[in-house]
Amino acid sequence: MSAIRLTDIPTRAPGNMDKKKTRKATHKLKKAIADLQNILYAEAKHSLLVILQGMDASGKDGAIRHVFNRINPQGIQVTSFKVPTPEEAAHDFLWRIHAHAPARGMMHIFNRSHYEDVLVTRVHGWIDDDTAHRRMQHINHFEQLLLDHQTTILKFYLHISREEQAKRLQERLKNPKKRWKYNPSDLEEAQKWHDYLHYYEEVFATCSPEIPWIIVPADQNWYKEFVIAEAVHQALKNMQLRYPRRASLASAGHAHNRKK
Amino acid sequence: MSAIRLTDIPTRAPGNMDKKKTRKATHKLKKAIADLQNILYAEAKHSLLVILQGMDASGKDGAIRHVFNRINPQGIQVTSFKVPTPEEAAHDFLWRIHAHAPARGMMHIFNRSHYEDVLVTRVHGWIDDDTAHRRMQHINHFEQLLLDHQTTILKFYLHISREEQAKRLQERLKNPKKRWKYNPSDLEEAQKWHDYLHYYEEVFATCSPEIPWIIVPADQNWYKEFVIAEAVHQALKNMQLRYPRRASLASAGHAHNRKK
Repeated sequence: MSAIRLTDIPTRAPGNMDKKKTRKATHKLKKAIADLQNILYAEAKHSLLVILQGMDASGKDGAIRHVFNRINPQGIQVTSFKVPTPEEAAHDFLWRIHAHAPARGMMHIFNRSHYEDVLVTRVHGWIDDDTAHRRMQHINHFEQLLLDHQTTILKFYLHISREEQAKRLQERLKNPKKRWKYNPSDLEEAQKWHDYLHYYEEVFATCSPEIPWIIVPADQNWYKEFVIAEAVHQALKNMQLRYPRRASLASAGHAHNRKK
Repeated sequence: MSAIRLTDIPTRAPGNMDKKKTRKATHKLKKAIADLQNILYAEAKHSLLVILQGMDASGKDGAIRHVFNRINPQGIQVTSFKVPTPEEAAHDFLWRIHAHAPARGMMHIFNRSHYEDVLVTRVHGWIDDDTAHRRMQHINHFEQLLLDHQTTILKFYLHISREEQAKRLQERLKNPKKRWKYNPSDLEEAQKWHDYLHYYEEVFATCSPEIPWIIVPADQNWYKEFVIAEAVHQALKNMQLRYPRRASLASAGHAHNRKK
């Protein structure tokens, strides 16, 4: 596998893509995903973990809202990983992540993830290179553990241009519907753009032996949503899901919901 | 490292050990452990994980009760891993284990552990060799993750003779104080003695690259308790614990208790 250079990858849709047609295609994919998710849940054999990473304002929240909004909420769980709580920080960095790994039959989405622990931490110099490399090995082993449990993992990097990011951060200040998302630290982080690119590229090179990263051109939401929907649909199709003939022992997976 | 052959290892104390003197030594060690545990908690930098494995009636419960009963319960947590609940079984085998990994400053004891997932499962043929070997690799990676988080791990195998086990299982039936521990399936499991020995020896060979197993002669409780207390004391001493001069950020570890 050749190294991923983000600056060589477009942040916009290919020129021949038609916005209206693509939106229609996304709409169809979303319906198909909702149907497949129902079988995933009924069969309770596989699970799906969708990891969303990307710079501030790259559209992670929007992707969740617009790609997964047709899915039965009983079978999906979204976790946003923010600054670790004191209890989380007192444990190894994968402790809080593992707690949210999907049970059989479930689809989980990580809005940011364990990858922050080898990104923001490095940009700010909170951990040294050796620690970062050990963490990336731990990440690979952890993801392998999930793969062995019939969990499919999709790792998306939402790829926006620096100009688009600046525009969106400004928009957050002006638009009262978006103002709540504005965080003064976003502007400081934006200054560290190249550092983030650098450490992301190292993640792509180190943490994808079995699960390649999907780089999503994300300047246009309609294209971003299509790329994600297509990958999710394909992943579910690859599981060769089947409705079980009867309630099986495996439906233990649903204990998850029964309990809550 | 040469392979461990359990049948070559005595289940009783060396002939020159004096029971009375040894009990006194254990008593002193327990006091020292309680003092060190207080610093472990105050410093909130390291943590200790004690894993207890052994055949039925090998004295795991007794070891916990008699070696750790002087410790401030605020800094210790014991987890007994029994048959997985439906929710646990719907996740990878390390999911429920990881949830109980110690926060900085804490001492956790596992009464049985993730090792059951490569022992009882193999004796009963619930998993094949390939799955078992993959699980053992996952265990090694998982324990390495904890080591990297300043967690010291002590793995004890309580080694009793088949005769001693038979005696204790009988005792459970007769003694009203022990009757509650009697489980008819214990006798069936006891029939599989040699299978258990075999799979334990494979665990010792495969899962100890960094953390060697401590084989504890366990036919006599006084000696068993001494060996465990000595190892725990040494592990805490090796941490070079120090009372911090002031409440540090690291005391975040205590969030664990504050929350409960």
